[in-house]
Amino acid sequence: MSNNDNGNDEAAADRDKARYRTDRRTSVQFIDLNLIRRRSSGNDKPTQSQRLTSINSNYENESNDKNASGFTDFAVRRIKHAQYGRREIEIAEQEMPGLMALRRRAESDRPLQGAKVIGCTHITAQTAVLIETLIRLGAQVRWCACNIFSTQNEVAAALAEESISIFAWKGETDDDFWWCIKKAIGAEQGWQPNMILDDGGDLTHYFHKHYSTLFSTIKGIVEESVTGVHRLYQMCRTQTLAVPAMNVNDSVTKTKFDNLYLCRESIIDGIKRCTDIMFGGKQAVVCGYGEVGKGCCSALRGMGCFVYVTEIDPICALQACMEGYKVVRLEEVIKQADMIITASGSKHTITRESLDKLKNGAILCNMGHSNTEIDVSFLRDSSTNDLQVERVRTNVDHVIWPNGKRIVLIAEGRIMNLCCSSVPSFVVSITAATQALALIELFNAPANRYKCDVYLLPKKMDEYVASLHLPAFDAHLTELTDEQCKYLGINKAGPFKPNYYRY
Amino acid sequence: MSNNDNGNDEAAADRDKARYRTDRRTSVQFIDLNLIRRRSSGNDKPTQSQRLTSINSNYENESNDKNASGFTDFAVRRIKHAQYGRREIEIAEQEMPGLMALRRRAESDRPLQGAKVIGCTHITAQTAVLIETLIRLGAQVRWCACNIFSTQNEVAAALAEESISIFAWKGETDDDFWWCIKKAIGAEQGWQPNMILDDGGDLTHYFHKHYSTLFSTIKGIVEESVTGVHRLYQMCRTQTLAVPAMNVNDSVTKTKFDNLYLCRESIIDGIKRCTDIMFGGKQAVVCGYGEVGKGCCSALRGMGCFVYVTEIDPICALQACMEGYKVVRLEEVIKQADMIITASGSKHTITRESLDKLKNGAILCNMGHSNTEIDVSFLRDSSTNDLQVERVRTNVDHVIWPNGKRIVLIAEGRIMNLCCSSVPSFVVSITAATQALALIELFNAPANRYKCDVYLLPKKMDEYVASLHLPAFDAHLTELTDEQCKYLGINKAGPFKPNYYRY
Amino acid sequence: MSNNDNGNDEAAADRDKARYRTDRRTSVQFIDLNLIRRRSSGNDKPTQSQRLTSINSNYENESNDKNASGFTDFAVRRIKHAQYGRREIEIAEQEMPGLMALRRRAESDRPLQGAKVIGCTHITAQTAVLIETLIRLGAQVRWCACNIFSTQNEVAAALAEESISIFAWKGETDDDFWWCIKKAIGAEQGWQPNMILDDGGDLTHYFHKHYSTLFSTIKGIVEESVTGVHRLYQMCRTQTLAVPAMNVNDSVTKTKFDNLYLCRESIIDGIKRCTDIMFGGKQAVVCGYGEVGKGCCSALRGMGCFVYVTEIDPICALQACMEGYKVVRLEEVIKQADMIITASGSKHTITRESLDKLKNGAILCNMGHSNTEIDVSFLRDSSTNDLQVERVRTNVDHVIWPNGKRIVLIAEGRIMNLCCSSVPSFVVSITAATQALALIELFNAPANRYKCDVYLLPKKMDEYVASLHLPAFDAHLTELTDEQCKYLGINKAGPFKPNYYRY
Amino acid sequence: MSNNDNGNDEAAADRDKARYRTDRRTSVQFIDLNLIRRRSSGNDKPTQSQRLTSINSNYENESNDKNASGFTDFAVRRIKHAQYGRREIEIAEQEMPGLMALRRRAESDRPLQGAKVIGCTHITAQTAVLIETLIRLGAQVRWCACNIFSTQNEVAAALAEESISIFAWKGETDDDFWWCIKKAIGAEQGWQPNMILDDGGDLTHYFHKHYSTLFSTIKGIVEESVTGVHRLYQMCRTQTLAVPAMNVNDSVTKTKFDNLYLCRESIIDGIKRCTDIMFGGKQAVVCGYGEVGKGCCSALRGMGCFVYVTEIDPICALQACMEGYKVVRLEEVIKQADMIITASGSKHTITRESLDKLKNGAILCNMGHSNTEIDVSFLRDSSTNDLQVERVRTNVDHVIWPNGKRIVLIAEGRIMNLCCSSVPSFVVSITAATQALALIELFNAPANRYKCDVYLLPKKMDEYVASLHLPAFDAHLTELTDEQCKYLGINKAGPFKPNYYRY
Repeated sequence: MSNNDNGNDEAAADRDKARYRTDRRTSVQFIDLNLIRRRSSGNDKPTQSQRLTSINSNYENESNDKNASGFTDFAVRRIKHAQYGRREIEIAEQEMPGLMALRRRAESDRPLQGAKVIGCTHITAQTAVLIETLIRLGAQVRWCACNIFSTQNEVAAALAEESISIFAWKGETDDDFWWCIKKAIGAEQGWQPNMILDDGGDLTHYFHKHYSTLFSTIKGIVEESVTGVHRLYQMCRTQTLAVPAMNVNDSVTKTKFDNLYLCRESIIDGIKRCTDIMFGGKQAVVCGYGEVGKGCCSALRGMGCFVYVTEIDPICALQACMEGYKVVRLEEVIKQADMIITASGSKHTITRESLDKLKNGAILCNMGHSNTEIDVSFLRDSSTNDLQVERVRTNVDHVIWPNGKRIVLIAEGRIMNLCCSSVPSFVVSITAATQALALIELFNAPANRYKCDVYLLPKKMDEYVASLHLPAFDAHLTELTDEQCKYLGINKAGPFKPNYYRY
Repeated sequence: MSNNDNGNDEAAADRDKARYRTDRRTSVQFIDLNLIRRRSSGNDKPTQSQRLTSINSNYENESNDKNASGFTDFAVRRIKHAQYGRREIEIAEQEMPGLMALRRRAESDRPLQGAKVIGCTHITAQTAVLIETLIRLGAQVRWCACNIFSTQNEVAAALAEESISIFAWKGETDDDFWWCIKKAIGAEQGWQPNMILDDGGDLTHYFHKHYSTLFSTIKGIVEESVTGVHRLYQMCRTQTLAVPAMNVNDSVTKTKFDNLYLCRESIIDGIKRCTDIMFGGKQAVVCGYGEVGKGCCSALRGMGCFVYVTEIDPICALQACMEGYKVVRLEEVIKQADMIITASGSKHTITRESLDKLKNGAILCNMGHSNTEIDVSFLRDSSTNDLQVERVRTNVDHVIWPNGKRIVLIAEGRIMNLCCSSVPSFVVSITAATQALALIELFNAPANRYKCDVYLLPKKMDEYVASLHLPAFDAHLTELTDEQCKYLGINKAGPFKPNYYRY
Repeated sequence: MSNNDNGNDEAAADRDKARYRTDRRTSVQFIDLNLIRRRSSGNDKPTQSQRLTSINSNYENESNDKNASGFTDFAVRRIKHAQYGRREIEIAEQEMPGLMALRRRAESDRPLQGAKVIGCTHITAQTAVLIETLIRLGAQVRWCACNIFSTQNEVAAALAEESISIFAWKGETDDDFWWCIKKAIGAEQGWQPNMILDDGGDLTHYFHKHYSTLFSTIKGIVEESVTGVHRLYQMCRTQTLAVPAMNVNDSVTKTKFDNLYLCRESIIDGIKRCTDIMFGGKQAVVCGYGEVGKGCCSALRGMGCFVYVTEIDPICALQACMEGYKVVRLEEVIKQADMIITASGSKHTITRESLDKLKNGAILCNMGHSNTEIDVSFLRDSSTNDLQVERVRTNVDHVIWPNGKRIVLIAEGRIMNLCCSSVPSFVVSITAATQALALIELFNAPANRYKCDVYLLPKKMDEYVASLHLPAFDAHLTELTDEQCKYLGINKAGPFKPNYYRY
Repeated sequence: MSNNDNGNDEAAADRDKARYRTDRRTSVQFIDLNLIRRRSSGNDKPTQSQRLTSINSNYENESNDKNASGFTDFAVRRIKHAQYGRREIEIAEQEMPGLMALRRRAESDRPLQGAKVIGCTHITAQTAVLIETLIRLGAQVRWCACNIFSTQNEVAAALAEESISIFAWKGETDDDFWWCIKKAIGAEQGWQPNMILDDGGDLTHYFHKHYSTLFSTIKGIVEESVTGVHRLYQMCRTQTLAVPAMNVNDSVTKTKFDNLYLCRESIIDGIKRCTDIMFGGKQAVVCGYGEVGKGCCSALRGMGCFVYVTEIDPICALQACMEGYKVVRLEEVIKQADMIITASGSKHTITRESLDKLKNGAILCNMGHSNTEIDVSFLRDSSTNDLQVERVRTNVDHVIWPNGKRIVLIAEGRIMNLCCSSVPSFVVSITAATQALALIELFNAPANRYKCDVYLLPKKMDEYVASLHLPAFDAHLTELTDEQCKYLGINKAGPFKPNYYRY
């Protein structure tokens, strides 16, 4: 990455985004590096110099490593930890039936034979299963991380050990980050990619900016994140989108499974691990009744909580009412709340003013997609701050008022299910299989099927993704008779619903 | 209605549809006239002559009635029963907060001032609240029934007593049916309508066919039913749609409230009223996990049933799995099922072959939108039938096998929640308020906003409908701050979600 | 019944009890005769003369009837309606697997051979199944009703048609009531009973008073009701109990099944049939969190209600908290309540003062065991009453305040699940099988096993009752290995729990 | 403890029990020392020498320590860690409202003034709150651990820092164990105790054996555990019980709260922490439907599991049926089970034979009160073992079949909620408050109220314990009116239920 890039405003903005991305809602678990640093140093306040120091420079990674086969076209932290990563990948495989079925079913015809995929995602055991699935389906791949903190080093090592060109480690600097993307693109290595799988849009952006001539061979982009999709639609509007793109983020397999069930699985687990609190009879306020809020409410009620909901959208509010949750404004119940969970997708849903009203011992955590739902600026601005913060466990702070009142703040307001819980591989399998099918679709589509626009995956493929996960539940689908097909006006193999169907 | 019409094939087809409509899924309760006849005559098989005899000819209605004010432009069964109908309407008003709020909020500016609405809907206490709401909003109306059996005569009388031109009674003949539509249109009375509110598309069809010249003053059509919307889309494709139309059927306020919660409310109630069965521990099979199936499953589990689901669509099947329902093929569990509930929207989901496998005492009922889900043809074809049918209560038959096995068939396979349960006014209020707003929107829209096409109601209006129902739950919405609006890129007053949002 | 008895104070008190009993909590459904009268006469206010007139004098019953076999030793309303009653009994048999299994399993050895049972219970299809079960087990029986209103006349006729000596009809006078008991005892007919099955204690009381010499042959009393058990314990204390007695009322099969699940089954059904209200999102207050309250809360939450609980007992209150219900004092939430359900077992849980605070349209009903939970005295005292009462349906009154506010009062505060819902036969089967086993135990027990005291059924028999009902659920018990029996110190055949086990 | 004791058979048996106790069901969390050892040594198989080596001899503890006040009459691991323990205690205090309320309410009259309590319990933050509560109520105490592994050293240090005579550390030898009990009794220190609070019966047994003459001043024993209560009843039968004893184990506050809700809170948490599995749609088998099983089933269903139950007791089985769980024999569903949870209280509920049928990846864990529910003998007998065991995480083993099938075994079959989850302080507070009240009752009872027998706490005190925990839920009790008291025949202040009431 040249100085030119650094000097340029847009690039600066990009870097801001990259930094911001460390907190972005994703489908994988990451451990906050800052917290790790603090813990190991016994120092809760990272110094500025710590912030700027890269843990690994790219050069040291590049220079030394070689896997057991002598392969060197990768950059990971410690190739020797490959076996630990392999075990993690194997465990993940057991709970990712969709991808494993895809391997088995599609392997014979290798639908990605000839595909050269550059990928930029979180590097976790779960994405490793995706990457290796793509390879089994015929693809060649080069890969990098979409987040400077989220890489599981052992997993990256395991991939490198399989002679996969991966460039990623936990704790990259911004320079490292862009260097890794560049290496993944592989132009200098003479590689000519024809597919992009992106999560966040950084790879797409960088490719567009520095390798736009290579777009001639690109068949399409698959993008998973809110942010990345947003950037694609912008390119579309400005007519700078050079190839077709698939929006995986808004597919039903993501919104109605990943968003809903991942949160249902995580909310109890995350709060328990952090606080060991009893849930029975506790008064919980869930701010926001979208898919995330719905998942949280369902789990909390299942454990005997008394659940309040806050909402801005009357339709979602009415849904909450019909399910028997009490829809309130925060200030009506804040004094009696035992825990507050933000899931609004908004900013400053909880402010200092709210905190002042909370009762002693109340728990505060964020399940929403950004880290701005709880305004924790007071934690940082020491000049005006009358509150003390005491770290009581990893990811758990007590915020202490002058009168001794303590609030339990989880993960400094960052996304709890990523910081403090685990992400069930099964749910990730659904999204990952959607990504794989999006690649297959774009790679094999006839020339004119897709224009330079942003598409949702055809419904039939969403249905296929779902069907890959049914055997894990011993679930057996019913097949339509010819007569029923005719009556319903649909094909025996689907799609079974109109595009606007809400599920 | 002239003989010409009768002689004409298309008209015959229309009549078939009209007859078919008596079984169509609707938002209101109706009582099967055939059953009433049989009961009163003590004869389970209506004779052909009974079928052909109109209970009321239009002439007798027309000739004699006059309300207390001397008004005569209506045709109902017994104007004297108006007070009973008025009480029913008053009771419904208490559970229709959306419409009542609309009256209060919009009354001052009378957004339908100048509207001349022809309506064709079921005539029930709930639609009466809608009709009178439209009038309060400034509209003039003429009304008829969309179904020959579903009119609540007392309610029709109550409307007539208010000098509303209504033409409807329970047990119309086909001739009566079209005569009433014609009277509602009111061309012969010199009326010039400018809005159409239809449920099923018959009014629209008749108007299009016989009064197409009047379309010049029509500002739009609001249609609520699956069938009617289907017909509108067909007209759209054949470019015969002469005015804009609003599709209320696929609005979120219908699919995510009416379909889901109406069924959750009705399934227990309907089966209890018919069979007095205990639900705890019963093994129930719900065929179909769409909104209707979801509502049924939720209620059944809430009462302690053990619930199986059958599905053709892998996405819905995966949802059922994630909620902890066992997804099976019917034949896997049919021998042990205590009750089978069809909610597939398909045809012949339950066949004679299935029935043969059911255990003694099993209950069979249909919650789906057509009457064809359970193939009950064997009930009618006496020549080949080895089964006996014994009516044990209204809407409850025992089907008896030669070996003595008895199956409990509810409502002859017709839609149970309409036959045997009640329809909660509250849920209807949501849909009815959507209809009212659709009229207001079309009536007041600037000239070019809507073309001759089929539209969904703008999301903001869906949200408004929802907001009208929140006070009934003491629910209080949260308001976005300016900062949050900016962050989210949305307006403080909504709409709050993109159009593709699934809720 | 002689005049002496009538003149005597104690007998007068007995009659008061008999009258009071018409409202007592029982396990069977009854239909309020007054309501029937009112309906048929179209007159909502029964006259004093109606109240005093017996619908049937005993003489007319006695004189004329004869069944198809020429048998005459019975008194029922219309022997000709026997076939209708038989069908009701057959339907009940299908949902009473415990009794039916008892017939099959115990029939070979006829454990009640030689037993001569006098029974005094409600006369319903369900008790008919019990009575005929006892006969199949070898018993001879004579039977009468424990309640002047609750007899299902067709069922009584069906029993008489089987040549069972039954003396019962709906609408007995007090004189009829005692006459029927006397006839059931059968001393004048030369019968010498040896077992008593009572529900309420009237038969026991009358027998003790007038036939105490016959106690020498009585082997024991089985009593099912709260009141009857209370009277037995009193006799025990005053040492006037002449034989052993079994308290079925406090058996686990009654308290943990009948009380809990019967109410869970009835609460939604009863309110729906009366009001057609939607439950989703409604704010319900359940007064009392005993077994009845627990059942109500569970069902209400299952339908999407928001449930508040009031309690006097901190242990039950803590249970409600742990289940996520909000425990409040009535006055805290009464203004926002949509429905109030009393299940406290107490008196005047709801007073006029509470009613004044309720909002327009609120629903008020009683699920508790007495009719005094809601103080409805204002309904009767017209002199001081500022409230109007309007009957809107059977069992549903609107109570109207001077300002127009209306409260919906169900069944005049009587027990809703008996008035307005049905009682699932399955649950009754559990209690009835317990009664049958109690008879078998007392009849066959060795001489010294039971003294003149009140006993609970041995746990092993409770377990047997439960086991009889498992096949209906396809439930399969696991059997202990010898090693496990030794480890647990229990017998392979049970009993499996200590007596104090709470379930 | 002298060699004489060691040589003696009974003492050997005692030591066996002491060792066994390390696995006994308790109300507190402990961490398996063996696992800790293994982890720190990186050696999964503890050697025999490790097993026999005491981590701390009593002498080193005794000799050196002194708290800040110069107090030395205690023996803990590291007095310097007192501040860490104090923080844990403070956190626990926030979730133990019952004990804290007891401090506030009863402090003024100090009902334990003059009490000299010897205690033998797990030493955790939660018991520390109990101990310090007793002191606030006026008691003097000396304390030791009832389990050689479960002591939280920091907590013990915190107590010692408060000059409490505590003798306990994690990893005591058997000799240490008895030495600590002896020191707690304090006879050599000239102390004369008058109350015993025991958990498991070892202190009672030791006291009875070596200090029986001191019984003359003992006013009573409070015992919490199944085992200890069992031993007391045995003493009662052999007439060797020298003082009154309170059985806390069977109080309603223990069985209906601790057993039920503690397991509901722990089951999801424990399995998640060990396996990160997704629960939605998983097929879970819960073996046993007592309070523990009920809690597990409720939580699992709340997370979307499909739940099967196995039972030996038909009454519990019928309860499971009525709640909608499918009651099966293990072999019917074992091939499809995703997880099996034992909660039977029995032995060898899961055998090798069952394990052979499980599918790949199935999870196996124990929530029951002993460690024998899952027969894991094959893990130990290497000679005959064809299975491999691979430790994948703390408390998680993969058991590997020759064909590669892997079963996930949690905590080697020990009680999962103690090994892998946390114990919510709130639930412990209920039991601990019961213990405190039992001490108060026995200490203050008039001379003749209690004989040398085993008693349950008076119901009124159970109710008081419950009432102490209601404010934490903002729960407000309703008070009976005088009229209601009279009607119900109960006192305004309770007790509110008969002794046999089941809750």
